[in-house]
Amino acid sequence: MMARPVIALLSDFGLRDHYVAAMKAVILGICPDATLFDISHEIPPQDILSGALELEAIVPYLPAGTIVLAVVDPGVGSGRRGVAIEAGGLRFVGPDNGLFTLALARLTSRTAVSIEERRFALDRISRTFEGRDRFAPAAAALASGAQFLEMGPAVGDLVELKVPRATRSGEGIDGMVLRVDHFGNLITNIDDDGLAALGSGVSVHIAGATIDGMAGTYADVAHGDLCAIVGSTGRLEISVNGGSAAAVLNAARGTFAHVRRRLGA
Amino acid sequence: MMARPVIALLSDFGLRDHYVAAMKAVILGICPDATLFDISHEIPPQDILSGALELEAIVPYLPAGTIVLAVVDPGVGSGRRGVAIEAGGLRFVGPDNGLFTLALARLTSRTAVSIEERRFALDRISRTFEGRDRFAPAAAALASGAQFLEMGPAVGDLVELKVPRATRSGEGIDGMVLRVDHFGNLITNIDDDGLAALGSGVSVHIAGATIDGMAGTYADVAHGDLCAIVGSTGRLEISVNGGSAAAVLNAARGTFAHVRRRLGA
Amino acid sequence: MMARPVIALLSDFGLRDHYVAAMKAVILGICPDATLFDISHEIPPQDILSGALELEAIVPYLPAGTIVLAVVDPGVGSGRRGVAIEAGGLRFVGPDNGLFTLALARLTSRTAVSIEERRFALDRISRTFEGRDRFAPAAAALASGAQFLEMGPAVGDLVELKVPRATRSGEGIDGMVLRVDHFGNLITNIDDDGLAALGSGVSVHIAGATIDGMAGTYADVAHGDLCAIVGSTGRLEISVNGGSAAAVLNAARGTFAHVRRRLGA
Repeated sequence: MMARPVIALLSDFGLRDHYVAAMKAVILGICPDATLFDISHEIPPQDILSGALELEAIVPYLPAGTIVLAVVDPGVGSGRRGVAIEAGGLRFVGPDNGLFTLALARLTSRTAVSIEERRFALDRISRTFEGRDRFAPAAAALASGAQFLEMGPAVGDLVELKVPRATRSGEGIDGMVLRVDHFGNLITNIDDDGLAALGSGVSVHIAGATIDGMAGTYADVAHGDLCAIVGSTGRLEISVNGGSAAAVLNAARGTFAHVRRRLGA
Repeated sequence: MMARPVIALLSDFGLRDHYVAAMKAVILGICPDATLFDISHEIPPQDILSGALELEAIVPYLPAGTIVLAVVDPGVGSGRRGVAIEAGGLRFVGPDNGLFTLALARLTSRTAVSIEERRFALDRISRTFEGRDRFAPAAAALASGAQFLEMGPAVGDLVELKVPRATRSGEGIDGMVLRVDHFGNLITNIDDDGLAALGSGVSVHIAGATIDGMAGTYADVAHGDLCAIVGSTGRLEISVNGGSAAAVLNAARGTFAHVRRRLGA
Repeated sequence: MMARPVIALLSDFGLRDHYVAAMKAVILGICPDATLFDISHEIPPQDILSGALELEAIVPYLPAGTIVLAVVDPGVGSGRRGVAIEAGGLRFVGPDNGLFTLALARLTSRTAVSIEERRFALDRISRTFEGRDRFAPAAAALASGAQFLEMGPAVGDLVELKVPRATRSGEGIDGMVLRVDHFGNLITNIDDDGLAALGSGVSVHIAGATIDGMAGTYADVAHGDLCAIVGSTGRLEISVNGGSAAAVLNAARGTFAHVRRRLGA
């Protein structure tokens, strides 16, 4: 058993306003012992896919028992459900809009409830800030030992996020960039299993450029050169050693990437 | 009694430099048990009003006993006082320049002292970084049990921040935008009490646009449409569902907003 | 002995992606009791000098026993060493690329090891994210009581960062801007010892401007005026009261600064 409950927060609130702090204040008022840390609050406004990708990436590293409070919530104040989910020894609290789809796909034995019991929310609920008034108190209640199943009725039909998938053909794999990180690395939807099936002699075609062969790390190519790599989240990434692939290739989310067997390789 | 003292930090220091960390390091050196969390460090440089508005907004949600360390301090190193204030079960430490005016207006039974006792500061005091050398150690001392009244002489004339107020007339309410948040929502100085007095049939005029009626939440209007709403801090906000009202209206702090009774409503 | 181990983090990862959170998640999984705080994650990508300057500035304020986990690591995945260093009652974990040079110069009795023992890393090590897979677990192991000397062989030749030094002549001191902070203050490589040796009557020449005399704090000059000051890190800084010296002077890292004795002073 963990000494202190851990709550990891993700949102599209940014760090300029008091919004993230309001959630933390509410949590610490209910569960003073909680250890809080931020996954990201710089998810682009209302961009559920970006949030889902960050959650997917962090999930394998979260301590057992961690409660994830995630709010990217274009439907705030409308009829969309708020949910609490247990999976793989972790718990998730947030809107039921697909934000957790990718994280849950990496975990086993999912159970979900719709958070409806009024006592798990603040007395006054703003219709524009349920992160503070509903989700933060629910996460803090779980951290304080509240029973998951008391929060509301079970949910069997969580909203699923549609994510563009890479497709395999006789020629290779066709995918696209899903995420551009702070360094300008282009993270695609092509995973290492797919790459492994093609063998070692491949080339990657993206935004008019061709990259021959996979690198093991950035330093395997010259400074300023493009490389294709299996990145830290197990996906094909296009990078520039010491620079930004996004800038060099003028690429962004949605840019197509094609992996092909190299002739003669 | 709380298990561990909570210190909430606000500043205009940004997150790029080590300045916020220096305050946290000093605090943890004095009070290793403190739980720290950030309200915001992205207050525009030396913008006391912006800082005051964020403090006002977070205050109702802070756990009892929280110590707020806030430093937006254009007069650093000059003769301006440093103060510690007790109000409503909270404590505040920072410059006496009006930064706390709006927060204190929401709280009762204010007591203030000028922080002058030398033992509550670091041995060496930079004249350009009193946040680190005076305010952080004072906040940490309070968190460690130091007596508030020992810090220096009582202060009865805290500097008051002048904030533009909305005015009511027979026609309605005339106010202005005070704050633009990360989502481009325009938060005005028109509060819900004022709005309630006008009844339900109102229109809002801002930057050449007219918005008929109040919405309960963003989703009450079509995607991309303007709405007027009582936001999460109890003030009239102008928003765009799924977009930025600041961008759509080209509005900013100081843009006038007028609320009128609708003819025939 | 401290109640809870403190780990201070610095990187060039930014706050948008999950990368910083992945390091924190790994740490809390190994050492749930750790108190974490951020020095900065906005170091410009792969800019070792910027990271080194922030570490130098924070070091005097860190609580005894703090473990600094710092990752600005252009050579990730290559042959460069990972190191753990003990100095002045602090410990440092990160790449051996000069990132710690300036911090260590402020501390005494340095001991260093190359982190090679496999048990201090995660089971699976990405070649592009050793911050998560090697350095975070090593820092957490130290926080949990692991013996420093068990991590790997002693290192006597830490990579030293070359930092442009100010030079003194009969005329005065010639230096340059090393760092521009969030407020647009220009922090130079001219330290207060050098300035003191010149006496009180000096002028500073930078980017075509001349500033006569040193100010004690920003408020010693009129709003909007340039001033020369010994800043909070003990170095000559060029500032504008209520504004940005970087913008006013169009200056940046590398801009020359010259200190001269004033004629007749």
